[in-house]
Amino acid sequence: MSINALDRLVSLLSKLPGVGKKSAGRMAYHILDADPSYAGMLAEELAGLHQAIHRCSVCGSFTESDPCPICADSSRDHSIICVVERAQDVRVIEESKEFRGLFHVLGGLIAPLEGISPGNLTIGQLMNRVRKDSVREVILAMNPTIEGDTTALYLQKVLKEFNIEVTRLASGLPVGGDLEYADRLTLSRSFRGRIKV
Amino acid sequence: MSINALDRLVSLLSKLPGVGKKSAGRMAYHILDADPSYAGMLAEELAGLHQAIHRCSVCGSFTESDPCPICADSSRDHSIICVVERAQDVRVIEESKEFRGLFHVLGGLIAPLEGISPGNLTIGQLMNRVRKDSVREVILAMNPTIEGDTTALYLQKVLKEFNIEVTRLASGLPVGGDLEYADRLTLSRSFRGRIKV
Repeated sequence: MSINALDRLVSLLSKLPGVGKKSAGRMAYHILDADPSYAGMLAEELAGLHQAIHRCSVCGSFTESDPCPICADSSRDHSIICVVERAQDVRVIEESKEFRGLFHVLGGLIAPLEGISPGNLTIGQLMNRVRKDSVREVILAMNPTIEGDTTALYLQKVLKEFNIEVTRLASGLPVGGDLEYADRLTLSRSFRGRIKV
Repeated sequence: MSINALDRLVSLLSKLPGVGKKSAGRMAYHILDADPSYAGMLAEELAGLHQAIHRCSVCGSFTESDPCPICADSSRDHSIICVVERAQDVRVIEESKEFRGLFHVLGGLIAPLEGISPGNLTIGQLMNRVRKDSVREVILAMNPTIEGDTTALYLQKVLKEFNIEVTRLASGLPVGGDLEYADRLTLSRSFRGRIKV
C-alpha cells in the first residue's frame, strides 16, 4: 500500500508515549470506525491546544489562566510548596487529593550525563518564591531515582539559607506490595525510614 | 482544577482502544511538551481523515482511491479471496507479506446475541464476487473464536454452491509458544490439525 492518510496518522500516533506501531494502527482504525465527529473534536482540541495552554508564570504547571487556578486559589495553603519534576506530576498529586498547598515545577531533574545542570531548572524561581512569600515548608516530591535523589540533595543544600522546613516524600514498600518482590534499595529505604507505631 | 482544554483532550484520548485515563494524561502532556508542529500535524490528519479515507467498493477495506490499491493491482492473484472480519486485518496480513491475493472485509462476525446476523455482513457482496469473477479459492481468515468459527461455518455452507476451494487459516500453537501455557482448546486444535512431517 502506498503512503496514504492512514499511514501518516499511524506514524504520528506511534510517536505518543507507550504507543507502538500496532497500537497506533488499532487507534487509527478505531478513529476511522468511530463517528467522524470524534476525529473532528480531537482535531479541534489538538489544533487549539498550544494556544489555550501555557505555563503558569508562578509555579510552571500547564494552565489556561495565569496564574493557574491552584496558585490563584486563596483557600489553599500558600505557605507550603511541593516541588515536582514535571507538570504532569501536579495532576497526579492533585488527583490524590492529599495536598492542599502550592506547587513548583522544576522542568526536569539534574542529570549531568544528559547535560541538565541546576541552571536548566527553575530553581532560581523557587528560591525567589521562598524568599518573597512567607513559605514555611518545601516538600521535595521528585521520584526516588538517582536523578531525583541528586536533585533533592541539591535543593536541600540551597534551601538551607532560609529558615524553613524541607521535607521529602517517604520512600518504601508500595501499599499492597509484597516484601518478596521488593528490590534491595526499596527495602533498604523502608528500613531507614521506618516509623514508630 | 476546572475543566479546561487539557482535560477535554485527556477525556477524548482516553476513548482510544487500550488507552486509560493515566496513559491519556501521559499522552496529553507529551503533546504539550513536544513541538507545537506535532499537535498541528496530528490535528490536520484527523480533520481530513474521514474525507480522505473511505471503504473500497469491491473489498470493503479502507482506502483513498476506489477500488483500493490491492483490488486494482493486476500483479496480484485475483483468483484467491481472503475473507477477514475487519479492515485492520487486511493491514496485518499485508504486513506479513504472506498473501498475494485479494481481500474481502465482512464488517463483523455473526453474533446472534449482539444482534449481528449474516444479513448485517457483506456476505452478499462476497457471493457476487465469487459468482462474477473467476475465483478458485476463498480463504476464511476469521479469528479462531466462537463468533469466528460460527461465521466460517456459515460461509463454508453458503459457498458450497460454487465449485471452488474453501480453506481456513490453521489454528494451533503460536510459534515460540510453550505447550505448558497453551489452553486446552488451542492444544486440541493443534492435535486435530496436525500435519505429516
